[in-house]
Amino acid sequence: MSSVGIVSPQSHYFDQPIDLACGRTLPAYELVYETYGQLNADASNAVLICHALSGHHHAAGRHHPDDKHPGWWDAYIGPGKPIDTNKFFVVSLNNIGGCHGSTGPTSINPDTGKPWGADFPPLRCRDWVNTQYRLMQLLHIEQWAAVIGGSLGGMQAMRWSLMYPECVRHCVVIASAMKLSTQNIAFNEVARQAILSDPEFHDGHYLEHNTLPKQGLRLARMVGHITYLSEDGMKEKFGRELKTGSLDLGHSDEAEFQIESYLRYQGDSFSTAFDANSYILMTKALDMFDLANDYGDDPVAAFKGALCDYLIVSFTTDWRFSPQRSREIVNAMIAAHKPVSYAEIDANFGHDAFLIPHSRYETVLRNYLQRIVKENEDKSCA
Amino acid sequence: MSSVGIVSPQSHYFDQPIDLACGRTLPAYELVYETYGQLNADASNAVLICHALSGHHHAAGRHHPDDKHPGWWDAYIGPGKPIDTNKFFVVSLNNIGGCHGSTGPTSINPDTGKPWGADFPPLRCRDWVNTQYRLMQLLHIEQWAAVIGGSLGGMQAMRWSLMYPECVRHCVVIASAMKLSTQNIAFNEVARQAILSDPEFHDGHYLEHNTLPKQGLRLARMVGHITYLSEDGMKEKFGRELKTGSLDLGHSDEAEFQIESYLRYQGDSFSTAFDANSYILMTKALDMFDLANDYGDDPVAAFKGALCDYLIVSFTTDWRFSPQRSREIVNAMIAAHKPVSYAEIDANFGHDAFLIPHSRYETVLRNYLQRIVKENEDKSCA
Repeated sequence: MSSVGIVSPQSHYFDQPIDLACGRTLPAYELVYETYGQLNADASNAVLICHALSGHHHAAGRHHPDDKHPGWWDAYIGPGKPIDTNKFFVVSLNNIGGCHGSTGPTSINPDTGKPWGADFPPLRCRDWVNTQYRLMQLLHIEQWAAVIGGSLGGMQAMRWSLMYPECVRHCVVIASAMKLSTQNIAFNEVARQAILSDPEFHDGHYLEHNTLPKQGLRLARMVGHITYLSEDGMKEKFGRELKTGSLDLGHSDEAEFQIESYLRYQGDSFSTAFDANSYILMTKALDMFDLANDYGDDPVAAFKGALCDYLIVSFTTDWRFSPQRSREIVNAMIAAHKPVSYAEIDANFGHDAFLIPHSRYETVLRNYLQRIVKENEDKSCA
Repeated sequence: MSSVGIVSPQSHYFDQPIDLACGRTLPAYELVYETYGQLNADASNAVLICHALSGHHHAAGRHHPDDKHPGWWDAYIGPGKPIDTNKFFVVSLNNIGGCHGSTGPTSINPDTGKPWGADFPPLRCRDWVNTQYRLMQLLHIEQWAAVIGGSLGGMQAMRWSLMYPECVRHCVVIASAMKLSTQNIAFNEVARQAILSDPEFHDGHYLEHNTLPKQGLRLARMVGHITYLSEDGMKEKFGRELKTGSLDLGHSDEAEFQIESYLRYQGDSFSTAFDANSYILMTKALDMFDLANDYGDDPVAAFKGALCDYLIVSFTTDWRFSPQRSREIVNAMIAAHKPVSYAEIDANFGHDAFLIPHSRYETVLRNYLQRIVKENEDKSCA
């Protein structure tokens, strides 16, 4: 198995206004995306990757030969990999509202000439699906062979199958849920409050003040990170190992346990790498996602109109989006008489497991995707 | 069952220096405490209550007839209640390092004439046990009929049984652990970082700057609060109910879900009611508690020297100090041939369950305490 190699992001400026779920209209927007593999003649091998909370378009390969890390899902996307770029044309974009090149809170608001900041419209999953639909049209694709996403990305994938049923042949939903639990919302709320209470936040207009709410974003990421890891995984990786090897009993700021240094490092890196308004926007989209809300709160009714096959995947130690949440999705799909496969993977990495190489998870994805390859081959023989 | 009624805190100034686990010496200290019930002639009915992270001496009754709330464990302490003040002489103190009257970071440092702030010595459970031992002597008690504590209080209770085995006849350890999990430490670390990164913290000398790190303490409490509640309990109490009844899609600071308002309220109240340095000190004492550390990391060896009977209680939905942690304690005690009773209570309130009225929990405590009453009666008949 090899890498997709050196890749370059592309971007497109969509100059048609788009109506958003909040009632506002975005006059135009830019989408940054990457593609891996070749679109076949009948455009039947296109796969859309929807990213999660802090994700972006750069899912596979490297931008420069000396990049330290490849794209965030490089373990699963590439020649010979489960999402095989010898077979599929893979499209991965940065969603609007994000902070990696697509139009978002750090972009310039054409009305003011200043960064949008907190004035950027709040978004919901359906807005992302609509913007992704236009990208699909731009690429001359009429139907995705598969829409795939983990976590918040899984919510977009499910929404795709309901909003544009004829455009989705397969839908792969990994470590996701039909709506957040109260506890999920609570953790997101603490993360947001950390950002909002940072004096450098300036009501979300920190860029105009030439500053960043770094401390707030750092805390938000630390809270988030605890919920991405499993309790056992954390214990296995860090235990109660002391960083300095001796019991520092002081009141000092020094991290004493390795888990403390790890969280601080994660928080510090994130505090300048991500945009605070994007973080608020993304967590709000998570909180407000409620798949069945438009269908009388009946998930079975929601899935009734879907035309695709589904693969649902969960991880045993994921307590942010537990297997129970995935089973609820599966049960609703079965009750709606939809074809659904379900795999519960015994992995020790909590919610993060969806990003981490794991042989059974890899096999499940590979087998499912190969089934799609075979469908395509059968069709072209027919 | 009635209340202990109106109670008044007492206090004593201990003018003998005390050596602390950190190697420093506290020249003198004040302890604030309350007592409920009457000490009997042979001082065999004294019960010590050890408080948890944010607790204090005021465990039962009211200070004023118009107090809105009684003491924090009023449901369990009083005439006819499980810890029956018709039978027991109950002692409840505020630990040093706290912020409710006993010497702590908000007290004046005699060396500087200013509040100790962050210069207050870091403490460990054994320091509290030593200061409580002096209180025991002051009250002319030679042996506690029982030392009782939940959470961090349970750690003190266990430590008592190892440090002063001849002074403890029964030891009741509720929702506790022999040491924190990596995840526990991680949550405490986020809480501390929230405080440390508040610009009003001023390296822990905020009182000298006439300010308080309110935002930091507020966030710390919000994080803590999520971990005190069970996921199911939170769902049952708050669900995904929207506060305003409509989907506010804005970027606004308005709480949308009831769980958000609840957490903000809890955080706001705590942010001025508790001292930030005390919070750091208490969470550090929690993190550093490691019962078996001095015994070659062998909990069986640790309990070998104990002379008391134990009651261990855990709650099914407590994920901060899960039943598994209590079972580890019980298993070590059994292996050390110590008399131990264990009750795992099916309660829906997470870690907070140890404070909340619950009939089976109440019965377990009541029965165990009545056994002590009977022991005392048998002894006086003999």
